[in-house]
Amino acid sequence: MYPADTLGVIGLGLIGGSLAKALRDSGFCRHFIGYGHRESSLRRGLELGVIDRYTLSLQELVATADIIVVCAPTLASANLLGDLIPLVKDRQAGPVITDAASVKGGLQAAALAANDGIFPRQLVLGHPIAGSERSGVDASDADLFRDHRVILTPLEANDPEAVQLVRAMWQSTGAEVVDMGVAEHDAVLASTSHLPHVLAYALVDALASSRDSDAIFRFAAGGFRDFTRIASSDPVMWRDIALANREALLDAIDDFSVHLNTLRTAVAEQDAQALQAVFERAKKARDDFAALLEQRARS
Amino acid sequence: MYPADTLGVIGLGLIGGSLAKALRDSGFCRHFIGYGHRESSLRRGLELGVIDRYTLSLQELVATADIIVVCAPTLASANLLGDLIPLVKDRQAGPVITDAASVKGGLQAAALAANDGIFPRQLVLGHPIAGSERSGVDASDADLFRDHRVILTPLEANDPEAVQLVRAMWQSTGAEVVDMGVAEHDAVLASTSHLPHVLAYALVDALASSRDSDAIFRFAAGGFRDFTRIASSDPVMWRDIALANREALLDAIDDFSVHLNTLRTAVAEQDAQALQAVFERAKKARDDFAALLEQRARS
Repeated sequence: MYPADTLGVIGLGLIGGSLAKALRDSGFCRHFIGYGHRESSLRRGLELGVIDRYTLSLQELVATADIIVVCAPTLASANLLGDLIPLVKDRQAGPVITDAASVKGGLQAAALAANDGIFPRQLVLGHPIAGSERSGVDASDADLFRDHRVILTPLEANDPEAVQLVRAMWQSTGAEVVDMGVAEHDAVLASTSHLPHVLAYALVDALASSRDSDAIFRFAAGGFRDFTRIASSDPVMWRDIALANREALLDAIDDFSVHLNTLRTAVAEQDAQALQAVFERAKKARDDFAALLEQRARS
Repeated sequence: MYPADTLGVIGLGLIGGSLAKALRDSGFCRHFIGYGHRESSLRRGLELGVIDRYTLSLQELVATADIIVVCAPTLASANLLGDLIPLVKDRQAGPVITDAASVKGGLQAAALAANDGIFPRQLVLGHPIAGSERSGVDASDADLFRDHRVILTPLEANDPEAVQLVRAMWQSTGAEVVDMGVAEHDAVLASTSHLPHVLAYALVDALASSRDSDAIFRFAAGGFRDFTRIASSDPVMWRDIALANREALLDAIDDFSVHLNTLRTAVAEQDAQALQAVFERAKKARDDFAALLEQRARS
């Protein structure tokens, strides 16, 4: 007995492909159907055995799947919910729908807009905190989510059984599932992920456009490579995330700028004490965080 | 026949200890003498066989060593040059002196001040671009400098033979030695190392003092750990570097802030095109840089 017979994956890339593989391994689902705009990815997923078949019809997907997971970039996911929700809203026992996008506020708004201002009870928004520098269905990995966090942002309007099914789905991949509010999720992700990406892009762009840029990149070493690694991320995906999480990201940039300016003033005024105090506080917070991560990896 | 008979190491930590080990292995020097304020490090260096003996007298070191390498933090190195230069300035064949500090402008100024405004001909300023998260003489590693860059900032006042000896010394550790002007060195290091440290400290401090800080550190993942790794660096050492390289660092912070503000405006105005253009430009520069580093590691 499978907890859910058929999984529909919208957007068969690294995340969608890895989820399908993990759920096949765990026995959570039995049939796997792909849907997407790029038939080449779907054909490749079929070849690799990640999905059993694919369809180019959203209607067919809705009629067949027990769970549909939207695994597209953030803005595309919001648009897909807009297409998907009208197809399920009059169904008595439609599929449970969930997603994997990096920003939840925009998807909540899209869902409300597509359903006359009422949040669809079978839609459970979620976000696996996992990824890889590789992308595409060929990079799919059944263990991608193991020991990673998945954040769900269930709402009062949600059917508790739908929330429970999505929670069980992610747990069966080996992930730890945590609940959070939509706004809290977007603020936390703005701070820990979206802001660092913007800082890395801004730093590399500043150095690349400086007149010393040749010498700069010639003498930069391993520490700089690690610090700027995230500036090698996909520009279109990050453009969309920055726009989708606009308000939380602006808040995070402004908060960061206040702290950077405090340090700038301390350097300008040669205030050794102030510099040392900030550096010590930050080192302690960073060391505590690293210890927490290590402890989690060991447990 | 050794290129230099006796090496004097001032400050026996990771850098000084690694240099002594490397020069013993390469046969560049035969005797190794330590000097420092912490006798415990010197005794430990003796125990480990990193040095052959130590002295607490700078006069004795000057009278014995053929090369003296100041391996102290940046501000301490400037002070040490102030003590050292008066002891060598009237000697006909005094030792060649060099250093390993992260900022060169302050050391140049200290040397001029200690020598009646004339740059000492036997002092060759240098900076090995190498390090480790570990510190102290116990972490010494004869291969620390292998395939790393060492920047020398020779001046017109320098004795060419002194420059040649310091160059040969670093080359014998397996490092690649490159010459640069003092101001260019400090600007390049401000951009590639000192600014990233300030950004990482400012980011972690901003997040640690936010009201969401518990959730933030609970949900931050591996990418955040890599991005903030340098915020775990020694606060006192980085306080000194920030103060020693004050002007170049302020320029680098200001240049960065202009670029961050451009991105902020693009997010605020929902200017997708501007965001994508910056992200693409930065990704290309970062990818080119990473390819360069990889190519260098392979060659």
